[in-house]
Amino acid sequence: MQTLTLEPLTRAAFEPFGDVIELDGAKHFPINGGTTERFHDLARVEIGADSGGRPLINVFRGQSRPQPVEISMMERHPLGSQAFLPVGVVSYLVVVAPAGDFDAKKMRAFSIRGWQGVNYARGVWHHPLIVLGGVRDFVVIDRGGSENNCEETYLSEKFRLVENGWG
Amino acid sequence: MQTLTLEPLTRAAFEPFGDVIELDGAKHFPINGGTTERFHDLARVEIGADSGGRPLINVFRGQSRPQPVEISMMERHPLGSQAFLPVGVVSYLVVVAPAGDFDAKKMRAFSIRGWQGVNYARGVWHHPLIVLGGVRDFVVIDRGGSENNCEETYLSEKFRLVENGWG
Repeated sequence: MQTLTLEPLTRAAFEPFGDVIELDGAKHFPINGGTTERFHDLARVEIGADSGGRPLINVFRGQSRPQPVEISMMERHPLGSQAFLPVGVVSYLVVVAPAGDFDAKKMRAFSIRGWQGVNYARGVWHHPLIVLGGVRDFVVIDRGGSENNCEETYLSEKFRLVENGWG
Repeated sequence: MQTLTLEPLTRAAFEPFGDVIELDGAKHFPINGGTTERFHDLARVEIGADSGGRPLINVFRGQSRPQPVEISMMERHPLGSQAFLPVGVVSYLVVVAPAGDFDAKKMRAFSIRGWQGVNYARGVWHHPLIVLGGVRDFVVIDRGGSENNCEETYLSEKFRLVENGWG
C-alpha cells in the first residue's frame, strides 16, 4: 500500500488548498467597548451567490476513525467553499489534492492539534471528516442551493496515512 | 433601576428575533458513509448579497462580565444577520428587542446553558456579547461589506438582568 506522510497544518503549507482558520496571526481588534476581541474575516467563503447559492451554517458530528487511516476516496464541492471549525479542541486529519483533474500523486495530508479549522476552497479535493479520539462536533459553513455540489472520486490504490518517523 | 427577568432560551421564545442554533430538534441526516451526522442549515443567514455583502467567518473572544449585569445600550445590524456559535459549552446571556424603532419595554433577556448558539435576524436589537464565567470564544457568522452595518442606541434608564426568583 502507498503511504502519505502527515504534516503539521500551517497557513503556508495549506495555502494552495484554502485557509487555515486559527487565531495566531489573524487580524484582530477590540469591539464592544473593549470587552470582546474580534478575530476578523478568517476565511475566503465562496457561496456562488451569482448561481443562486446561499451560506449555510451546519454542525457536523463526526465519529472517530480507526487507525491507521486509509484513504480510498476523495470529494470536492465545485460550487463553493466548505469551512470546518471545531467546537472545542479536536484532533483530526485533513487530506487534500489540488482543484482540477484529481491527481493522487499531489495529495497532501495534515494533522491538526489545538484549535485549528480549515476552509477548503471551491473545487479542492478533500477527504471527508477524519476525527480521532472520539465523537466530535464541527461548525461547518458551506453553500446551499439546489444544484449538485458534491463530486467523488475513488482511488485506484489506497493510501495509508503515516506520521513522520513511523515509516 | 428597572429589571429584566432572564428566560431560558428556546426556539419558540426566540422566534421573533432570529434563530436558536442547537442540535435538539434540528434537521439531520448521515453523510460520509454514515461516519458523520450533518445537522443541516441551522440558521437563516442574511448577508445582503444584493447590496454587495459577503459572508464573514470570525471568532469573537469575549471577556467575562461582572454580575449583576446592567444593560445601558443596544445595537443592531441593519444589513445582515449575525450568528454566534460557542466554541464549547459556554454560559452567556442574550438581550434582544424587536427590529424597528427601539422600544425598551419590549426587551427580552435569555440565559443560555449547554451548547446553544443564536442568530440575530437583520435589524434585531441586541446587546453585545455577555459572557459569564471566564474568557470564551464564539464562531461568528455575519456580513462583510463597506457600508456601515452597526447602529447603537443608549437607554434612558439602565435595566438590571435578574433570574426568576431573585426579585
